[in-house]
Amino acid sequence: MFDKFITNAGSWLSGKGPSSEIVFSSRMRLARNLKGVPFPSRANPAQREEVLKKIEGVHAKIKHLDKSFFVKMDDLPGLDKNFLIERHLISKEHTSTETSRGLVVTGDERIAIMVNEEDHLRMQVITSGFDLPKCWGILDEIDSELNKTIAFSFHPQIGYLTACPTNVGTALRASCMLHLPALVFTKRINKILELLAKISFTTRGLFGEGTQALGNFFQVSNQVCLGPSEKELMENLVGVVNQILTQEMDARDVLLKKHKITVEDSIWRAAGILTNSRLINTREALSHLSMLSLGLDLGIIKGIKKELINNLFIIIQPAHLQKIEGRQLKESERDYIRAEVLRQKLKS
Amino acid sequence: MFDKFITNAGSWLSGKGPSSEIVFSSRMRLARNLKGVPFPSRANPAQREEVLKKIEGVHAKIKHLDKSFFVKMDDLPGLDKNFLIERHLISKEHTSTETSRGLVVTGDERIAIMVNEEDHLRMQVITSGFDLPKCWGILDEIDSELNKTIAFSFHPQIGYLTACPTNVGTALRASCMLHLPALVFTKRINKILELLAKISFTTRGLFGEGTQALGNFFQVSNQVCLGPSEKELMENLVGVVNQILTQEMDARDVLLKKHKITVEDSIWRAAGILTNSRLINTREALSHLSMLSLGLDLGIIKGIKKELINNLFIIIQPAHLQKIEGRQLKESERDYIRAEVLRQKLKS
Repeated sequence: MFDKFITNAGSWLSGKGPSSEIVFSSRMRLARNLKGVPFPSRANPAQREEVLKKIEGVHAKIKHLDKSFFVKMDDLPGLDKNFLIERHLISKEHTSTETSRGLVVTGDERIAIMVNEEDHLRMQVITSGFDLPKCWGILDEIDSELNKTIAFSFHPQIGYLTACPTNVGTALRASCMLHLPALVFTKRINKILELLAKISFTTRGLFGEGTQALGNFFQVSNQVCLGPSEKELMENLVGVVNQILTQEMDARDVLLKKHKITVEDSIWRAAGILTNSRLINTREALSHLSMLSLGLDLGIIKGIKKELINNLFIIIQPAHLQKIEGRQLKESERDYIRAEVLRQKLKS
Repeated sequence: MFDKFITNAGSWLSGKGPSSEIVFSSRMRLARNLKGVPFPSRANPAQREEVLKKIEGVHAKIKHLDKSFFVKMDDLPGLDKNFLIERHLISKEHTSTETSRGLVVTGDERIAIMVNEEDHLRMQVITSGFDLPKCWGILDEIDSELNKTIAFSFHPQIGYLTACPTNVGTALRASCMLHLPALVFTKRINKILELLAKISFTTRGLFGEGTQALGNFFQVSNQVCLGPSEKELMENLVGVVNQILTQEMDARDVLLKKHKITVEDSIWRAAGILTNSRLINTREALSHLSMLSLGLDLGIIKGIKKELINNLFIIIQPAHLQKIEGRQLKESERDYIRAEVLRQKLKS
């Protein structure tokens, strides 16, 4: 059923929206649990199934979700699960063997709800560019509509109750995926990452923890859910991202003024390798795609659409390549197919 | 006066001739000294000048040299001297400050005679491909013709006398410049180099000692001049080169059969970098040109002339780039111009 997704990126990869040169995507996520039902890890199979059934029954009646798909994770082959991880629609944890897991997802992939992950509901809205208020607007509406038919675990003094204490309170996580090649190139990034940690913001890579700096992507999100309101949390992140944006813009100016030829060389070499190699692993491909994207932003490279590059960041991942080929692939085969996909897409 | 040489390779770079896929060029060299005149290092300025004048007077009357140029090294700017080194027409030693050094060179650069280098005369004939007998035929005629008007230092038991004892006897050095990318790729080259040393053959790089393996080029020459006749010396080298040729052909077969995709990847990446980079040093450029040349030999790359690649091996050298630009260049400027020259020549 995800076949139509394979080579088409989700709408959040369109490369459009505010500050989309640097802010790849914005994402808001809420955790919710059903009142009177134990958290998924403590619920028995019947209780988990009850939650799943409830969401299956109600999802199509909710605003924004009227044309969404409902998927039972148990029905999916392993490859499809990895495919959904690569598209940022589910977490790795959501592919574990526990039963009665589900996913509600819209055709444009803007909205996704994991059922029976760590919490009963993990709802996310993701959009291209820097637009957290837009995400929040939709997410808040979905939350309110669901709440009309489903009662959530809520404590008047503390707020929403969640399986992990770090989410208790608003249960909101706001994040932006930032592309910061100039801050990496000028080695200014480390100071910024240190500072972010100090003021309680988390940074991860394009594909979660351990993928830091891959393709020069950094996902910045709030660490604290308890205390500030949803709006305050969002505004805090907006403020921080605006500062990083300014730093990256400044670093790009420095690159153009002081290291123009070196940067041009890196960008054109990246283009040369992407359009010519016959074997390329994910790490190297992401690194060159990052340079290509920067080249486009700086006007050094022309005639390629930003959306295509954003798309490639995702579809060169292992599960995507295997979906494209329609079969399991060994690592060396993937390197070959990855190089082929890059050549085809970039030469056209 | 060398302006016409700048972007045109010498005839020995045409990429034609027997086995020219692997044997870049063949070269024969004779050392001769004038009877009764001390070797250049022991001669006084007047004696050195006498030798130079004698060659200036006689060269145009010699067969093969009737249209040659006569150049006094003192008259040349430093850049031109380096330029001649890069074209393999003079040695580095020939650019030192001692007076009355000269060069006789034909327009096609096939024949060159250094006057007052280590010996009074160092005469070389160089040709494209694997054709030592052709070189020897021409060199032998020039030697005989010169000998009609100039008496050489010769000892009936030992042979020709030379400044360095290693040249005494025939004073002949035969060499072939071999392009051995597959032997390097398959790591078989080291065993071959060890073996060559054992049977008294010398291997150097494209630009003399210390440049070993640069661009996968290996110049193989005889170490011994005393004992065998000129013809035997030449035939020994022919035998050795034929064996290396077979080994390289075999290694190329192995590459195509067992490592095809890896090799294709290396070749196409080399092409991608050469046609896209904005800064490239000599070492890296030679390495990629070597891969491109292999790609042409293996039929993986098409539509480029071998002569162009052979030409590029020479004209991307520092002095050539400075002649092309008509001014002194810093190293970083050379890297920029080198990248530009490569892109222009390879994209057309």
